[in-house]
Amino acid sequence: MDDKLIDVPRGLSGVAVAETTISDVHGREGYYQYGAHSAIELARTASFEEVWHLLVTGRLPSEPELAAFHARVRAAQQSPELGRVIASLVKGAGEASVTPLAGLKAAWPLLSAARGLRPVYDLDENARLADAIELAAAAPVVLAAVFRGAVEPLPLRDDRGLVANYLFQVTGEVPDAVHERALSAYLVAAMDHGFNASTFTARVIASTGADVASCLAGALGALSGPLHGGAPARALDSLDEVGTPERIEPWVREQLAAGRRIMGFGHAVYRTVDPRSALLKEVARGFGGPRVEFALRFEETVERLLAELKPGRALHANVEFYAAVVMELCGLPREMLTPTFAVARTIGWTAHVLEQARDGKIIRPSARYVGPELAA
Amino acid sequence: MDDKLIDVPRGLSGVAVAETTISDVHGREGYYQYGAHSAIELARTASFEEVWHLLVTGRLPSEPELAAFHARVRAAQQSPELGRVIASLVKGAGEASVTPLAGLKAAWPLLSAARGLRPVYDLDENARLADAIELAAAAPVVLAAVFRGAVEPLPLRDDRGLVANYLFQVTGEVPDAVHERALSAYLVAAMDHGFNASTFTARVIASTGADVASCLAGALGALSGPLHGGAPARALDSLDEVGTPERIEPWVREQLAAGRRIMGFGHAVYRTVDPRSALLKEVARGFGGPRVEFALRFEETVERLLAELKPGRALHANVEFYAAVVMELCGLPREMLTPTFAVARTIGWTAHVLEQARDGKIIRPSARYVGPELAA
Repeated sequence: MDDKLIDVPRGLSGVAVAETTISDVHGREGYYQYGAHSAIELARTASFEEVWHLLVTGRLPSEPELAAFHARVRAAQQSPELGRVIASLVKGAGEASVTPLAGLKAAWPLLSAARGLRPVYDLDENARLADAIELAAAAPVVLAAVFRGAVEPLPLRDDRGLVANYLFQVTGEVPDAVHERALSAYLVAAMDHGFNASTFTARVIASTGADVASCLAGALGALSGPLHGGAPARALDSLDEVGTPERIEPWVREQLAAGRRIMGFGHAVYRTVDPRSALLKEVARGFGGPRVEFALRFEETVERLLAELKPGRALHANVEFYAAVVMELCGLPREMLTPTFAVARTIGWTAHVLEQARDGKIIRPSARYVGPELAA
Repeated sequence: MDDKLIDVPRGLSGVAVAETTISDVHGREGYYQYGAHSAIELARTASFEEVWHLLVTGRLPSEPELAAFHARVRAAQQSPELGRVIASLVKGAGEASVTPLAGLKAAWPLLSAARGLRPVYDLDENARLADAIELAAAAPVVLAAVFRGAVEPLPLRDDRGLVANYLFQVTGEVPDAVHERALSAYLVAAMDHGFNASTFTARVIASTGADVASCLAGALGALSGPLHGGAPARALDSLDEVGTPERIEPWVREQLAAGRRIMGFGHAVYRTVDPRSALLKEVARGFGGPRVEFALRFEETVERLLAELKPGRALHANVEFYAAVVMELCGLPREMLTPTFAVARTIGWTAHVLEQARDGKIIRPSARYVGPELAA
C-alpha cells in the first residue's frame, strides 16, 4: 500500500470499529446492558423470545406482538425447507461424523439457498428482519436434530417456547418450568456481549451485503475457535478431573504451580465479578445437590488460591463456569454446551447484522506489508 | 465500554489491522506483488499450482516439490470423504436449489467434520498447511459438481493440472492449452489482492483458532456480498443489455445521465489502470472474434464518455470486466463466474489463515455505544 496507514493496537484491542445501540459492557463496574435494560435483570425476568424481540427490533414486545413473534418462530422451525435441509444433513452423514456445529454451519447456507434468501442490501428493513428471525429460529432445531441423528426432529410443543422445545428436542424429555427458567436465564444472559470476534465477523460479512445466512455461518465459525469465549465444556472437564472435594485444593495448587490456566476463571473485559457468573451461580444454588456444592467449593478454592498465589490479578469465575454447571443440571450433554451457547449468541449476531446492514459501508481495512521487496 | 476507545475511519479504511508478507497492492502505481514477485508476471508465466505453492509456503516450488504438490492436490480432490460430502449435498438438494456457492459454504464444514480437522492453534505449521491445501483443492471439485448436479464428479485427468480439470468438470469438455492458459492467467491474478473484506473475515475467524474450514466458509460468505469485488457476471449482463455495437454510446450516455454506475468500471484502490484488467484485456485480444471486439469497443466508449462527462474521476475498466470476457471465452457459464473467482481467492484466504495462525492473538475490537442509557 502506498497510502498512509493508520496504526492501531494488535488484535484491534480497544479500537472502536463501529457505533452500536445494541448493547454495552461495563467491565470495570461489572454490568452490561441490552439497550436501556440491564441484561442480567432481563435474564431473571424476561423470556427468551421477549429479549430476542428487544435485540432485533429495539424494544420489548407488547402481548399481541409477543404472540405473533412466537407464531413466526414456530412457523420457521417447522418450514418444509428446513425439514429437507435437516434430513439431507442427517442422512448424508451416514457413517461420517457431522457434529452439531458443523451441521449448523452447513444448514444455514443450504436453507438460505432453498428459501432463495437475498443479500441484505437488496432487502428492506422488514425483509431483513424476517430472514434474521427465520435463520435464528432454525438454529436450535438443527443442532438438536444433528446431535440426535434424527432425520425428523422431535415434534415441537405448541404450548411451549423456544427454550423448552430446544431442551425437549435435545434430551427427548419435556422439561419442567424450573429447568426451562434456568436455561432461559443463561441463554438470555449469553445473547450478546460486546464486539467479540464472532459478532465482529458477522458484521464484516454483513458489510459486504451478503445474505444473513452467510453472516451467521461465518460468526459460528469464529465462535468455534478455542480462543473465543465459548467453551463451557472445559470447565466441567476440570471438575471431572478433580473428582472429589478433598482433591480440589491439591489439584488447583498443582495447576497453578505448573503455570496452567484454570478453565472457567478470568475474563478479558471484566475486572470484577462477571455479572453473568453471579447470576448463574444463584441459579445453580437454587438447584442445590452435591454437584452444585462441589462446584461452589471448587470456585471458592480457586479464588482463594489465586488471591494467595497470584495476588493483584483478581481472577474470578467467568460465565463459562456456572453456565456449564447450569446446562448440565438442565440435562444437556457436554457436547451440546457450545452449541447451546450458539443458540443464544445467534440472537446477538442477527441484531448486529441488521444494524450493520443499516450502515451500508463495506468494512475493508488495510495491512502493513513487511515482506520482501519486488525482485528486479 | 468504560475504557478509553480509539476512533478510526468508518469501515476501517486505511487502518493497518495486521502485518503481512503475503502480498501488497500499489494502487497509485498500478501494480501488485505476491511476496517478491510481480503478480501479473506470475499470471503470465507461472502455473496455478506454482503460485499456490508460493502463497502458502512463501516460495516457488522446485520441480520435485511441484510434482509432489500436484500429487497432494489430486489426492485431496479424490478423497472418499469429499466424495461422500458431494454426494450428500447433491442428493440432498432434490428439487431444492443448491447454488454452487451455497454448496461450497456447506461442503467445507462438513468435510472438516468428516475428516476430523482441528483448530489451527492445536496444529503445527505442517498440519495447518495440509488442511489448507486439502480444503482449497476441494473447492473447484465441489463447485463443479454442485453446478452440474453430479453425485459423482467427472473423473480428474491425471496429466492435467487443477485449472484444466476444473474447466473439464464444469463444462464436460477437455480444454485445449490456450483456454487453460487464459483461465490460469485470470485465476493467478485473482488469488490475492490486499485486505479485502473476505480476506479480513478469514483472518478474524482464524484469530480465534477455529479450523481452516470455518475461516474459508466465512470468507466465502463475505465474497458472496454484492459490495465485494467479485461479481464479474454483472459486466456481461451489461454487454447483453446493450446488444449491438451501435447501441453502446447511447446506452452509456443514458446510464451516466441517470446517475447509474457502469458495472466493471472503477476500483476502490487503483487510481490508474487496474493491472489485472490490462493483463486480461491482452488475453482476450489473443482470442479475437466479435465478442472481444464488442467488449473492446464498449470499454473504449465508456472511458471516453466518463472522461467527457465526469472529468477528473479517471475511471477505468476493473478486473471484473475483462475477467468476465475471458471466463466466457473459456466456456464458463455465467452462474460460474463468481464461483470461479472463489476458486482463485480461496488460495489467498488460506495463505492469510496460515499467517494469522502464526500471530496467535485474537482479533477482538470494541464499539462505541450510542444507544439509550440504562433505565433507572
